[in-house]
Amino acid sequence: MSQNLTTIAFDADDTLWHNERFFKLTQDRFADLLRDYVDGHHLAEHLLAAEKRNLGHYGFGIKGFTLSMIETAIDVTDGRVPASVISELIAAGREMLEHTIELLPHAREAVEAVAGTHRVLLVTKGDLLDQERKLAQSGLGDLFDAVEVVSDKTPQVYTRIFDRHGTGAAHALMAGNSLRSDVNPVIAAGGWGVHVPHDLTWGYEVDDAPEDASRFRKVKNLGELPALVQEIG
Amino acid sequence: MSQNLTTIAFDADDTLWHNERFFKLTQDRFADLLRDYVDGHHLAEHLLAAEKRNLGHYGFGIKGFTLSMIETAIDVTDGRVPASVISELIAAGREMLEHTIELLPHAREAVEAVAGTHRVLLVTKGDLLDQERKLAQSGLGDLFDAVEVVSDKTPQVYTRIFDRHGTGAAHALMAGNSLRSDVNPVIAAGGWGVHVPHDLTWGYEVDDAPEDASRFRKVKNLGELPALVQEIG
Repeated sequence: MSQNLTTIAFDADDTLWHNERFFKLTQDRFADLLRDYVDGHHLAEHLLAAEKRNLGHYGFGIKGFTLSMIETAIDVTDGRVPASVISELIAAGREMLEHTIELLPHAREAVEAVAGTHRVLLVTKGDLLDQERKLAQSGLGDLFDAVEVVSDKTPQVYTRIFDRHGTGAAHALMAGNSLRSDVNPVIAAGGWGVHVPHDLTWGYEVDDAPEDASRFRKVKNLGELPALVQEIG
Repeated sequence: MSQNLTTIAFDADDTLWHNERFFKLTQDRFADLLRDYVDGHHLAEHLLAAEKRNLGHYGFGIKGFTLSMIETAIDVTDGRVPASVISELIAAGREMLEHTIELLPHAREAVEAVAGTHRVLLVTKGDLLDQERKLAQSGLGDLFDAVEVVSDKTPQVYTRIFDRHGTGAAHALMAGNSLRSDVNPVIAAGGWGVHVPHDLTWGYEVDDAPEDASRFRKVKNLGELPALVQEIG
């Protein structure tokens, strides 16, 4: 079987554009709103626990995050949180949905460079409408041959995507900031996983580097990706 | 151009399985929880207004509906709603996400019948994870050649879907309970639109029948669809 790459996939949030910083800003505001009830450190723990507990119900995205904030606010205050604070949390979630996209350094040039030579995909989790809006606003939409918004990133999901839009996972490379979602499951599916670290990464997405490192690579930023793609061949 | 149908698409909620009844049940519970503050009739109006106002932010689905209920509860009580009621609304939304799928009469036999002769698609709005769960639980998943969860159902969206998975909209038929989302935009895209009325249809989805009726059909239930597909040819 040829080792040649035909298909390059990119994660979106915190790989092509900033995202986690808006969650972080909102969490800071959340802590401010509830500082009379609970200290900030435990609050962050409570919120992450609620997010993880609710993933199976809500999936990934801002609407589920907003509902988890409301639930946590009620829990940590034993129901004493005023409705005005709940309103603020709803407003904070909505502001996240409206925030302006800021591309990360080298994002556009990396996608453009590999789009000239390979089939290029975007593979992202989150709320469908929100991800479509961000892609449209990013100005990168026309560079992608296909876009897949998925409810989770598992080896099975990557196998299906690379079979549908490419020539199978063995000829595909995925670049993203999350070892857990972007790198390890692609390698498990038989593809190449390239880690592009981001200084803010959600607790859920933290994972170890894969044990089988033959198809694992790490780059400092997306500026290094086109050369890596050429090198793999 | 041949008139031959190659592709049959189905809406999911309230076409293949019950859905609106769970929203209705939740709205009744919502009215019960807030009956001390506002009468039920106005409450339904307030809630529908919030849902419509929030569609651009939240899209279609249960998570956005839950956030709209919470927002409405705060609004109509001028912020006096207790946190215990908000918790109940979050729980009600979660129960909707967990409800058991009940297929509508003739759903399985209709999909099976046309799957033997045509390419069969599912096209649905809503939350990605929720729709995936319902499809898996319905037991119909293997009958479909492709499934598209979309953020809105416009002529452009149908054109893209039928180009990707079929042989263009001119050779495609879409069956669903919503004139606004399932029938009229497909006809505008050049395809056939078949209305399958459901006794509960959300206010947002109500629309007039299309002016150009040459590719518009109405059936009493999905049991009549296979014969109609044969008749169109």
